[in-house]
Amino acid sequence: MGELRKDYILDRWVIISTERAKRPHEFVNKKAEEEVGTCYFCPGNENLTPPEISRWPCGSSQWKVRVFPNKFAAVNIDGNSAIKTDNRFYTFSSNFGKHEVIVETPDHKKQLADLDDETIKEVLKMYSNRIEELSKFPGIKYVCVFKNSGKEAGTSIFHSHSQVIAYNQVPEVVNEEIIAAANFSSCPFCDIIKTEKESLRRCFENDQFVAFAPYASRFPFEIWVMPKQHIKSITEMDEGKLYDLALIMGKILRKLKELNAPYNYVLHYSPSHCNLHFHIEILPRLSTWAGFEFNGTVINVVTPEDAAKFYRGEL
Amino acid sequence: MGELRKDYILDRWVIISTERAKRPHEFVNKKAEEEVGTCYFCPGNENLTPPEISRWPCGSSQWKVRVFPNKFAAVNIDGNSAIKTDNRFYTFSSNFGKHEVIVETPDHKKQLADLDDETIKEVLKMYSNRIEELSKFPGIKYVCVFKNSGKEAGTSIFHSHSQVIAYNQVPEVVNEEIIAAANFSSCPFCDIIKTEKESLRRCFENDQFVAFAPYASRFPFEIWVMPKQHIKSITEMDEGKLYDLALIMGKILRKLKELNAPYNYVLHYSPSHCNLHFHIEILPRLSTWAGFEFNGTVINVVTPEDAAKFYRGEL
Repeated sequence: MGELRKDYILDRWVIISTERAKRPHEFVNKKAEEEVGTCYFCPGNENLTPPEISRWPCGSSQWKVRVFPNKFAAVNIDGNSAIKTDNRFYTFSSNFGKHEVIVETPDHKKQLADLDDETIKEVLKMYSNRIEELSKFPGIKYVCVFKNSGKEAGTSIFHSHSQVIAYNQVPEVVNEEIIAAANFSSCPFCDIIKTEKESLRRCFENDQFVAFAPYASRFPFEIWVMPKQHIKSITEMDEGKLYDLALIMGKILRKLKELNAPYNYVLHYSPSHCNLHFHIEILPRLSTWAGFEFNGTVINVVTPEDAAKFYRGEL
Repeated sequence: MGELRKDYILDRWVIISTERAKRPHEFVNKKAEEEVGTCYFCPGNENLTPPEISRWPCGSSQWKVRVFPNKFAAVNIDGNSAIKTDNRFYTFSSNFGKHEVIVETPDHKKQLADLDDETIKEVLKMYSNRIEELSKFPGIKYVCVFKNSGKEAGTSIFHSHSQVIAYNQVPEVVNEEIIAAANFSSCPFCDIIKTEKESLRRCFENDQFVAFAPYASRFPFEIWVMPKQHIKSITEMDEGKLYDLALIMGKILRKLKELNAPYNYVLHYSPSHCNLHFHIEILPRLSTWAGFEFNGTVINVVTPEDAAKFYRGEL
């Protein structure tokens, strides 16, 4: 048995089908193999990356978090950000923007889940800093901050890192959320949080944040983190809020580590002229999208209610 | 260098980035391993599948194509197809529908690319038959026909097969295409075909069909097949058209076989009350979507123009 479910506000549908249901431990993935050879992200190899942009602690000789341009950038700042249309159907611009890497620890053997809360907070603060800085560039419309962890989640480099792509578009999903949210008289996510934190999908909560498995989860063990207050961006968060966010992120990532789960997460913030409730979507990659999924409707074999039980330690 | 490109008619964006470009032979995937143990799809094991729905040749003792219900169905016909909304944000129904498997050959060692054109035509005819039959069930809004080939494309079973999911939704992407196409005074795809078949993205053409690498391809070597005439569904095609479609599908799949490429393909047909130019989208799975992609914008390291050169044998 199962259910067809629609996303809270988007026209995005999921079939929750438990026909092939597995218990959490059956999802445990094989451990990622470390790559051999020189790691460009390790201390001592700083000269192998493009010139450093930022580090924490600032000015120290021993960095704990380090930012530099992606050597294989998907976008670059030399092109033209203006979008044109030729012959009605060909709409394009240069692949304009800036693509950066944030290395989260000097320790090649540690993943983000292994870091202390203070360091996770500093990584989040670096996200905030990069959004702030890169938003200033003319032509940049959005600064997408994301993390890919594990081969099945699309990363080729084992050393723990996040990525930043600042470009001349608001990402399609964020844009759809902004448009859909604008159809409500007040922020729909403020309402959703109130309901979800009392629901079977609630996972974690602290003073400032709540984490829940979204009603129409597209991925087994998908989980979203939202501030309880209506905050539009991580750039609005003070040290206290960032620390609370780090606490809840750490809890989630340590649970995913129990499954060796590859995962992506993406920050959804609101550009200044729009209104969207800030959140982070964490997408474990324990299943493979196939033809049916790429047509729009996603099949998920783990109910969000079971996913929440797993996060709460009840399963 | 590269480009940001928008889909012809959808608000779907792709970054074509050749920074990490590879030549086609560098994409060659390792060959899929055959699974060991009993194959439920092999002749002699018909009693291990749910009761047969159809076979070709019809009434023969030795089938060449065989249809039966999916043992691990994502949807089932017992539930309620009506969609309800509770508490504003929870929209749902039963996971209503029918989920079928089409085995394309009795030969465990052959893939669709290895079959003769006549058999490929019979597989396509079976697609048409299943759409026709399943559309008759009350509550069914769409019959999604798709194929997953290879582990990275989401299949767990090696024996060559397609799937059919008939359910109470029009798939999101098809729905978006229908809505976007309706904004044009005449069929946009009729125009797109005329331009693309003279472009650098043209791959194959015969009397009835054209195959091209779409302008904003999301996958390396993505390719679409469209009838030149404005046809809404495979169910409208006579034997001649189906044979021409089989010829062009065979050519594409044999090229993908050179790369051992895992792939998905999906039929996009128009429900009878809508207007959409029928087409098949073939999505090779030689790259992995990561956090950035799941936020909407896709990075593709192969230009559609290079993909077309590959299909034409020029690369």
